[in-house]
Amino acid sequence: MRIGELSRRTGVPVPTIKYYVREGLLPPGELSSPNQASYDDGHERRLRLIRALLEVGGLSVAAIGDVLVAIDDKEQPVHKLLGAAAQRLVPEYGDGGGHDDAEVVLARERVTRLVEERGWRVHPGNKAFGALEASLASLARVGHGSFAELLDDYADAAERVARVDLEYTARRVDREDLVEAVVVGTVVGDAMFAALRRMAQVDASSRLFAEERAE
Amino acid sequence: MRIGELSRRTGVPVPTIKYYVREGLLPPGELSSPNQASYDDGHERRLRLIRALLEVGGLSVAAIGDVLVAIDDKEQPVHKLLGAAAQRLVPEYGDGGGHDDAEVVLARERVTRLVEERGWRVHPGNKAFGALEASLASLARVGHGSFAELLDDYADAAERVARVDLEYTARRVDREDLVEAVVVGTVVGDAMFAALRRMAQVDASSRLFAEERAE
Repeated sequence: MRIGELSRRTGVPVPTIKYYVREGLLPPGELSSPNQASYDDGHERRLRLIRALLEVGGLSVAAIGDVLVAIDDKEQPVHKLLGAAAQRLVPEYGDGGGHDDAEVVLARERVTRLVEERGWRVHPGNKAFGALEASLASLARVGHGSFAELLDDYADAAERVARVDLEYTARRVDREDLVEAVVVGTVVGDAMFAALRRMAQVDASSRLFAEERAE
Repeated sequence: MRIGELSRRTGVPVPTIKYYVREGLLPPGELSSPNQASYDDGHERRLRLIRALLEVGGLSVAAIGDVLVAIDDKEQPVHKLLGAAAQRLVPEYGDGGGHDDAEVVLARERVTRLVEERGWRVHPGNKAFGALEASLASLARVGHGSFAELLDDYADAAERVARVDLEYTARRVDREDLVEAVVVGTVVGDAMFAALRRMAQVDASSRLFAEERAE
Protein backbone atom coordinates (compact mmCIF):
# COMPACT_ATOMS: atom_id res chain seq x y z
CA MET A 1 0.00 0.00 0.00
CA ARG A 2 1.04 3.64 -0.37
CA ILE A 3 1.92 5.89 2.57
CA GLY A 4 -1.49 7.65 2.34
CA GLU A 5 -3.31 4.34 2.79
CA LEU A 6 -1.01 3.39 5.70
CA SER A 7 -1.83 6.75 7.29
CA ARG A 8 -5.61 6.23 6.85
CA ARG A 9 -5.49 2.70 8.29
CA THR A 10 -3.50 3.66 11.40
CA GLY A 11 -4.63 7.24 11.97
CA VAL A 12 -0.98 8.36 12.02
CA PRO A 13 -0.36 11.49 9.85
CA VAL A 14 1.96 11.07 6.83
CA PRO A 15 4.66 13.49 8.15
CA THR A 16 4.73 11.51 11.43
CA ILE A 17 5.22 8.24 9.53
CA LYS A 18 8.11 9.84 7.60
CA TYR A 19 9.60 11.04 10.89
CA TYR A 20 9.48 7.48 12.33
CA VAL A 21 11.25 6.19 9.20
CA ARG A 22 13.97 8.87 9.54
CA GLU A 23 14.41 8.01 13.23
CA GLY A 24 14.76 4.33 12.38
CA LEU A 25 11.63 3.25 14.29
CA LEU A 26 9.92 2.09 11.10
CA PRO A 27 11.72 0.37 8.19
CA PRO A 28 11.45 2.33 4.92
CA GLY A 29 8.86 1.16 2.39
CA GLU A 30 10.00 -0.79 -0.66
CA LEU A 31 10.62 1.52 -3.63
CA SER A 32 8.16 0.63 -6.38
CA SER A 33 9.29 3.62 -8.47
CA PRO A 34 11.91 6.34 -7.79
CA ASN A 35 9.30 8.51 -6.07
CA GLN A 36 6.99 5.95 -4.56
CA ALA A 37 7.40 3.54 -1.67
CA SER A 38 5.15 0.61 -0.88
CA TYR A 39 4.25 -0.46 2.69
CA ASP A 40 2.87 -3.78 3.94
CA ASP A 41 1.04 -5.29 6.93
CA GLY A 42 4.31 -5.45 8.86
CA HIS A 43 4.59 -1.65 8.66
CA GLU A 44 1.00 -1.25 9.78
CA ARG A 45 1.48 -3.50 12.80
CA ARG A 46 4.76 -1.85 13.81
CA LEU A 47 3.12 1.58 13.52
CA ARG A 48 0.30 0.55 15.87
CA LEU A 49 2.87 -0.76 18.35
CA ILE A 50 4.83 2.52 18.24
CA ARG A 51 1.61 4.47 18.84
CA ALA A 52 0.65 2.29 21.82
CA LEU A 53 4.09 2.67 23.41
CA LEU A 54 3.95 6.45 22.88
CA GLU A 55 0.35 7.16 23.84
CA VAL A 56 -0.35 4.56 26.49
CA GLY A 57 3.14 3.76 27.69
CA GLY A 58 4.36 7.34 27.63
CA LEU A 59 7.77 6.15 26.36
CA SER A 60 10.07 8.60 24.58
CA VAL A 61 10.98 8.09 20.91
CA ALA A 62 14.50 7.11 22.02
CA ALA A 63 13.19 4.50 24.48
CA ILE A 64 10.86 3.09 21.81
CA GLY A 65 13.84 2.80 19.47
CA ASP A 66 15.73 0.78 22.12
CA VAL A 67 12.77 -1.56 22.63
CA LEU A 68 12.36 -2.14 18.89
CA VAL A 69 16.07 -2.90 18.54
CA ALA A 70 15.65 -5.57 21.22
CA ILE A 71 12.67 -7.04 19.35
CA ASP A 72 14.53 -7.14 16.04
CA ASP A 73 17.84 -8.54 17.31
CA LYS A 74 17.46 -12.24 16.55
CA GLU A 75 20.89 -13.14 18.01
CA GLN A 76 19.98 -12.91 21.69
CA PRO A 77 18.39 -15.82 23.59
CA VAL A 78 14.78 -15.19 24.63
CA HIS A 79 15.31 -14.62 28.37
CA LYS A 80 18.05 -12.03 27.70
CA LEU A 81 15.83 -10.32 25.18
CA LEU A 82 12.91 -10.18 27.61
CA GLY A 83 15.26 -8.82 30.27
CA ALA A 84 16.60 -6.14 27.90
CA ALA A 85 13.10 -5.07 26.92
CA ALA A 86 11.87 -5.09 30.54
CA GLN A 87 14.81 -2.96 31.75
CA ARG A 88 13.83 -0.20 29.30
CA LEU A 89 10.27 -0.28 30.53
CA VAL A 90 11.04 0.58 34.16
CA PRO A 91 9.83 4.14 34.74
CA GLU A 92 12.51 6.50 36.02
CA TYR A 93 11.81 7.67 39.55
CA GLY A 94 13.53 10.48 41.34
CA ASP A 95 16.20 9.37 43.76
CA GLY A 96 15.82 12.31 46.10
CA GLY A 97 18.98 14.10 44.99
CA GLY A 98 21.32 11.39 43.79
CA HIS A 99 22.97 10.53 47.12
CA ASP A 100 22.41 7.48 49.31
CA ASP A 101 20.93 9.09 52.39
CA ALA A 102 19.70 7.21 55.48
CA GLU A 103 16.30 6.63 53.86
CA VAL A 104 17.83 4.96 50.80
CA VAL A 105 20.07 2.74 52.94
CA LEU A 106 17.08 1.57 55.03
CA ALA A 107 14.95 1.08 51.90
CA ARG A 108 17.67 -1.07 50.31
CA GLU A 109 17.76 -3.29 53.40
CA ARG A 110 13.98 -3.67 53.28
CA VAL A 111 13.94 -4.55 49.56
CA THR A 112 16.83 -7.01 49.99
CA ARG A 113 14.93 -8.75 52.81
CA LEU A 114 11.76 -8.90 50.70
CA VAL A 115 13.62 -10.50 47.78
CA GLU A 116 15.28 -13.04 50.12
CA GLU A 117 12.05 -13.95 51.89
CA ARG A 118 10.27 -14.55 48.59
CA GLY A 119 13.19 -16.31 46.92
CA TRP A 120 12.89 -13.96 43.94
CA ARG A 121 15.68 -14.31 41.38
CA VAL A 122 16.23 -10.57 40.95
CA HIS A 123 19.65 -8.95 40.88
CA PRO A 124 20.09 -5.78 43.02
CA GLY A 125 21.38 -4.09 39.84
CA ASN A 126 17.96 -4.51 38.21
CA LYS A 127 16.31 -1.15 37.61
CA ALA A 128 13.05 -2.27 39.21
CA PHE A 129 14.99 -3.03 42.42
CA GLY A 130 16.26 0.57 42.43
CA ALA A 131 12.82 1.93 41.60
CA LEU A 132 11.28 0.12 44.59
CA GLU A 133 14.07 1.46 46.83
CA ALA A 134 13.35 4.99 45.59
CA SER A 135 9.63 4.60 46.31
CA LEU A 136 10.21 3.40 49.86
CA ALA A 137 12.82 6.09 50.55
CA SER A 138 10.43 8.73 49.28
CA LEU A 139 7.65 7.48 51.57
CA ALA A 140 10.00 7.75 54.55
CA ARG A 141 11.02 11.30 53.60
CA VAL A 142 7.41 12.54 53.52
CA GLY A 143 6.64 10.97 56.89
CA HIS A 144 4.70 8.02 55.47
CA GLY A 145 7.30 5.32 56.08
CA SER A 146 4.56 3.16 57.61
CA PHE A 147 2.97 2.77 54.15
CA ALA A 148 5.80 0.28 53.58
CA GLU A 149 3.95 -2.07 55.96
CA LEU A 150 1.72 -2.81 52.97
CA LEU A 151 4.73 -4.08 51.00
CA ASP A 152 3.92 -7.77 51.48
CA ASP A 153 0.29 -7.34 50.42
CA TYR A 154 1.47 -5.44 47.35
CA ALA A 155 4.05 -8.14 46.58
CA ASP A 156 1.38 -10.87 46.85
CA ALA A 157 -0.78 -8.99 44.34
CA ALA A 158 2.24 -8.34 42.07
CA GLU A 159 3.15 -12.04 42.07
CA ARG A 160 -0.39 -12.93 41.04
CA VAL A 161 -0.38 -10.39 38.21
CA ALA A 162 3.12 -11.39 37.04
CA ARG A 163 2.03 -15.04 36.91
CA VAL A 164 -0.86 -14.32 34.52
CA ASP A 165 1.38 -11.92 32.55
CA LEU A 166 3.87 -14.72 31.95
CA GLU A 167 1.15 -17.23 31.11
CA TYR A 168 -0.06 -14.75 28.50
CA THR A 169 3.37 -14.30 26.92
CA ALA A 170 4.22 -18.01 27.08
CA ARG A 171 1.31 -18.72 24.69
CA ARG A 172 3.34 -17.05 21.91
CA VAL A 173 5.40 -19.33 19.75
CA ASP A 174 7.05 -16.75 17.51
CA ARG A 175 9.98 -14.88 19.04
CA GLU A 176 8.88 -11.45 17.82
CA ASP A 177 5.36 -12.05 19.12
CA LEU A 178 6.76 -13.09 22.49
CA VAL A 179 8.76 -9.92 23.02
CA GLU A 180 5.99 -7.75 21.64
CA ALA A 181 3.56 -9.35 24.09
CA VAL A 182 5.92 -8.62 26.99
CA VAL A 183 6.41 -5.03 25.90
CA VAL A 184 2.74 -4.30 25.31
CA GLY A 185 1.58 -6.25 28.34
CA THR A 186 4.09 -4.56 30.63
CA VAL A 187 3.38 -1.02 29.50
CA VAL A 188 -0.39 -1.28 29.08
CA GLY A 189 -0.61 -3.59 32.09
CA ASP A 190 0.72 -0.82 34.36
CA ALA A 191 -1.93 1.57 33.03
CA MET A 192 -4.63 -1.08 33.36
CA PHE A 193 -3.70 -1.95 36.94
CA ALA A 194 -3.43 1.70 38.02
CA ALA A 195 -6.91 2.41 36.61
CA LEU A 196 -8.40 -0.68 38.28
CA ARG A 197 -6.75 0.24 41.59
CA ARG A 198 -8.34 3.73 41.42
CA MET A 199 -11.75 2.25 40.63
CA ALA A 200 -11.51 -0.26 43.48
CA GLN A 201 -10.39 2.56 45.80
CA VAL A 202 -13.38 4.71 44.81
CA ASP A 203 -15.66 1.76 45.57
CA ALA A 204 -13.97 1.00 48.91
CA SER A 205 -13.93 4.68 49.89
CA SER A 206 -17.59 5.13 48.98
CA ARG A 207 -18.50 2.19 51.25
CA LEU A 208 -16.23 3.31 54.09
CA PHE A 209 -17.25 6.97 54.16
CA ALA A 210 -20.86 6.48 53.01
CA GLU A 211 -22.38 7.39 56.39
CA GLU A 212 -20.92 10.86 56.01
CA ARG A 213 -23.36 11.56 53.16
CA ALA A 214 -26.35 11.34 55.49
CA GLU A 215 -25.02 14.28 57.56
CA MET B 1 13.58 28.76 61.03
CA ARG B 2 15.01 30.86 58.20
CA ILE B 3 14.69 29.89 54.53
CA GLY B 4 18.34 28.70 54.43
CA GLU B 5 17.69 26.23 57.26
CA LEU B 6 14.47 25.03 55.55
CA SER B 7 16.51 24.45 52.38
CA ARG B 8 19.19 22.48 54.27
CA ARG B 9 16.61 20.30 56.04
CA THR B 10 14.67 19.40 52.89
CA GLY B 11 17.40 19.50 50.22
CA VAL B 12 15.28 21.92 48.17
CA PRO B 13 17.30 24.93 46.87
CA VAL B 14 16.28 28.40 48.17
CA PRO B 15 15.22 29.72 44.70
CA THR B 16 12.98 26.65 44.28
CA ILE B 17 11.34 27.29 47.67
CA LYS B 18 10.70 30.92 46.63
CA TYR B 19 9.21 29.68 43.35
CA TYR B 20 6.81 27.37 45.23
CA VAL B 21 5.73 30.31 47.43
CA ARG B 22 5.12 32.49 44.33
CA GLU B 23 3.11 29.67 42.70
CA GLY B 24 1.00 29.30 45.84
CA LEU B 25 2.13 25.73 46.58
CA LEU B 26 3.76 26.77 49.85
CA PRO B 27 2.35 29.43 52.21
CA PRO B 28 4.73 32.38 52.71
CA GLY B 29 6.82 32.44 55.90
CA GLU B 30 5.82 34.75 58.73
CA LEU B 31 7.63 38.09 58.50
CA SER B 32 9.84 38.47 61.59
CA SER B 33 11.37 41.69 60.17
CA PRO B 34 10.75 43.56 56.89
CA ASN B 35 13.42 41.48 55.12
CA GLN B 36 13.19 38.20 56.96
CA ALA B 37 10.57 35.44 56.93
CA SER B 38 10.32 32.60 59.40
CA TYR B 39 9.26 29.04 58.45
CA ASP B 40 7.99 26.25 60.68
CA ASP B 41 7.56 22.45 60.70
CA GLY B 42 4.37 22.79 58.61
CA HIS B 43 6.40 24.33 55.79
CA GLU B 44 8.98 21.58 56.02
CA ARG B 45 6.36 18.84 55.81
CA ARG B 46 4.52 20.49 52.91
CA LEU B 47 7.82 20.90 51.05
CA ARG B 48 8.60 17.19 51.41
CA LEU B 49 5.12 16.35 50.11
CA ILE B 50 5.58 18.62 47.07
CA ARG B 51 8.93 16.98 46.32
CA ALA B 52 7.44 13.47 46.56
CA LEU B 53 4.56 14.36 44.22
CA LEU B 54 7.01 15.91 41.74
CA GLU B 55 9.82 13.35 41.85
CA VAL B 56 7.99 10.11 42.52
CA GLY B 57 4.52 10.96 41.25
CA GLY B 58 5.69 12.88 38.22
CA LEU B 59 2.86 15.41 38.72
CA SER B 60 3.09 18.86 37.15
CA VAL B 61 3.30 21.96 39.36
CA ALA B 62 -0.28 22.83 38.30
CA ALA B 63 -1.58 19.36 39.28
CA ILE B 64 0.22 19.58 42.63
CA GLY B 65 -1.45 22.95 43.20
CA ASP B 66 -4.86 21.37 42.60
CA VAL B 67 -4.16 18.53 45.04
CA LEU B 68 -2.95 20.92 47.74
CA VAL B 69 -6.07 23.07 47.30
CA ALA B 70 -8.16 19.94 47.92
CA ILE B 71 -6.14 19.16 51.07
CA ASP B 72 -6.54 22.69 52.42
CA ASP B 73 -10.24 23.17 51.67
CA LYS B 74 -11.83 22.34 55.03
CA GLU B 75 -15.38 22.91 53.73
CA GLN B 76 -15.75 19.70 51.76
CA PRO B 77 -16.82 16.40 53.36
CA VAL B 78 -14.08 13.76 53.48
CA HIS B 79 -15.37 11.46 50.74
CA LYS B 80 -15.72 14.37 48.27
CA LEU B 81 -12.25 15.52 49.16
CA LEU B 82 -10.76 12.07 48.62
CA GLY B 83 -12.60 11.87 45.30
CA ALA B 84 -11.33 15.28 44.20
CA ALA B 85 -7.75 14.36 45.09
CA ALA B 86 -8.01 10.92 43.46
CA GLN B 87 -9.39 12.36 40.19
CA ARG B 88 -6.28 14.55 39.83
CA LEU B 89 -4.02 11.56 40.37
CA VAL B 90 -5.28 9.54 37.39
CA PRO B 91 -2.53 9.57 34.77
CA GLU B 92 -3.62 10.91 31.38
CA TYR B 93 -3.61 8.22 28.73
CA GLY B 94 -3.86 8.77 25.02
CA ASP B 95 -7.32 8.15 23.62
CA GLY B 96 -6.06 7.08 20.23
CA GLY B 97 -7.01 10.27 18.42
CA GLY B 98 -9.92 11.70 20.38
CA HIS B 99 -12.76 9.89 18.60
CA ASP B 100 -14.80 6.92 19.81
CA ASP B 101 -13.78 4.27 17.29
CA ALA B 102 -14.95 0.65 17.33
CA GLU B 103 -12.22 -0.30 19.80
CA VAL B 104 -13.31 2.35 22.31
CA VAL B 105 -16.97 1.30 22.04
CA LEU B 106 -16.09 -2.36 22.67
CA ALA B 107 -13.75 -1.39 25.53
CA ARG B 108 -16.52 0.66 27.17
CA GLU B 109 -18.88 -2.32 27.06
CA ARG B 110 -16.22 -4.52 28.63
CA VAL B 111 -15.48 -2.05 31.44
CA THR B 112 -19.20 -1.49 32.11
CA ARG B 113 -19.70 -5.27 32.42
CA LEU B 114 -16.72 -5.56 34.78
CA VAL B 115 -18.08 -2.81 37.04
CA GLU B 116 -21.54 -4.42 37.08
CA GLU B 117 -20.23 -7.91 37.79
CA ARG B 118 -18.15 -6.67 40.71
CA GLY B 119 -20.80 -4.27 42.01
CA TRP B 120 -18.26 -1.45 42.08
CA ARG B 121 -19.72 1.96 42.88
CA VAL B 122 -17.84 3.81 40.15
CA HIS B 123 -19.45 6.36 37.86
CA PRO B 124 -18.64 6.03 34.11
CA GLY B 125 -17.59 9.71 34.25
CA ASN B 126 -14.75 8.81 36.61
CA LYS B 127 -11.37 9.42 34.97
CA ALA B 128 -10.10 5.96 35.96
CA PHE B 129 -13.04 4.42 34.06
CA GLY B 130 -11.93 6.30 30.92
CA ALA B 131 -8.29 5.38 31.50
CA LEU B 132 -9.16 1.68 31.66
CA GLU B 133 -11.21 2.03 28.45
CA ALA B 134 -8.23 3.68 26.74
CA SER B 135 -5.90 0.86 27.84
CA LEU B 136 -8.20 -1.85 26.51
CA ALA B 137 -8.83 0.00 23.23
CA SER B 138 -5.09 0.43 22.77
CA LEU B 139 -4.48 -3.30 23.31
CA ALA B 140 -7.08 -4.09 20.63
CA ARG B 141 -5.46 -1.65 18.18
CA VAL B 142 -2.03 -3.27 18.46
CA GLY B 143 -3.47 -6.75 17.99
CA HIS B 144 -3.25 -7.74 21.66
CA GLY B 145 -6.95 -7.59 22.48
CA SER B 146 -6.65 -11.00 24.13
CA PHE B 147 -4.55 -9.44 26.91
CA ALA B 148 -7.94 -8.19 28.17
CA GLU B 149 -8.69 -11.80 29.18
CA LEU B 150 -6.44 -11.08 32.18
CA LEU B 151 -8.77 -8.28 33.30
CA ASP B 152 -10.44 -10.29 36.05
CA ASP B 153 -7.14 -11.45 37.52
CA TYR B 154 -5.93 -7.85 37.45
CA ALA B 155 -9.16 -6.66 39.09
CA ASP B 156 -8.81 -9.28 41.87
CA ALA B 157 -5.29 -8.03 42.58
CA ALA B 158 -6.43 -4.38 42.40
CA GLU B 159 -9.25 -5.04 44.90
CA ARG B 160 -6.78 -6.59 47.31
CA VAL B 161 -4.40 -3.64 47.01
CA ALA B 162 -7.21 -1.07 47.29
CA ARG B 163 -8.44 -2.76 50.47
CA VAL B 164 -5.09 -2.41 52.25
CA ASP B 165 -4.74 1.14 50.82
CA LEU B 166 -8.02 2.12 52.46
CA GLU B 167 -7.14 0.39 55.72
CA TYR B 168 -3.96 2.45 55.76
CA THR B 169 -5.75 5.76 55.19
CA ALA B 170 -8.58 4.91 57.61
CA ARG B 171 -6.03 4.82 60.45
CA ARG B 172 -5.70 8.62 60.13
CA VAL B 173 -7.84 10.70 62.43
CA ASP B 174 -6.85 14.17 61.25
CA ARG B 175 -8.47 15.31 58.00
CA GLU B 176 -5.29 16.72 56.46
CA ASP B 177 -3.40 13.52 57.33
CA LEU B 178 -6.14 11.43 55.72
CA VAL B 179 -5.99 13.21 52.37
CA GLU B 180 -2.21 13.38 52.43
CA ALA B 181 -2.10 9.62 53.05
CA VAL B 182 -4.40 9.02 50.06
CA VAL B 183 -2.34 11.29 47.82
CA VAL B 184 1.02 9.86 48.81
CA GLY B 185 -0.22 6.28 48.92
CA THR B 186 -1.88 6.53 45.52
CA VAL B 187 1.06 8.12 43.74
CA VAL B 188 3.86 6.18 45.42
CA GLY B 189 1.71 3.04 45.50
CA ASP B 190 1.58 2.98 41.67
CA ALA B 191 5.37 3.23 41.50
CA MET B 192 5.75 0.56 44.20
CA PHE B 193 3.38 -1.86 42.49
CA ALA B 194 4.93 -1.34 39.04
CA ALA B 195 8.41 -2.06 40.45
CA LEU B 196 7.19 -5.17 42.31
CA ARG B 197 5.41 -6.41 39.18
CA ARG B 198 8.66 -6.08 37.18
CA MET B 199 10.62 -7.92 39.85
CA ALA B 200 8.06 -10.74 40.03
CA GLN B 201 8.09 -10.93 36.20
CA VAL B 202 11.90 -11.22 36.14
CA ASP B 203 11.66 -14.05 38.66
CA ALA B 204 8.86 -15.84 36.77
CA SER B 205 10.63 -15.36 33.42
CA SER B 206 13.91 -16.63 34.80
CA ARG B 207 12.17 -19.82 36.03
CA LEU B 208 10.19 -20.28 32.80
CA PHE B 209 13.05 -19.72 30.36
CA ALA B 210 15.83 -21.10 32.55
CA GLU B 211 16.39 -24.19 30.42
CA GLU B 212 17.44 -21.92 27.58
CA ARG B 213 20.57 -20.95 29.51
CA ALA B 214 21.94 -24.46 29.33
CA GLU B 215 21.99 -24.27 25.53
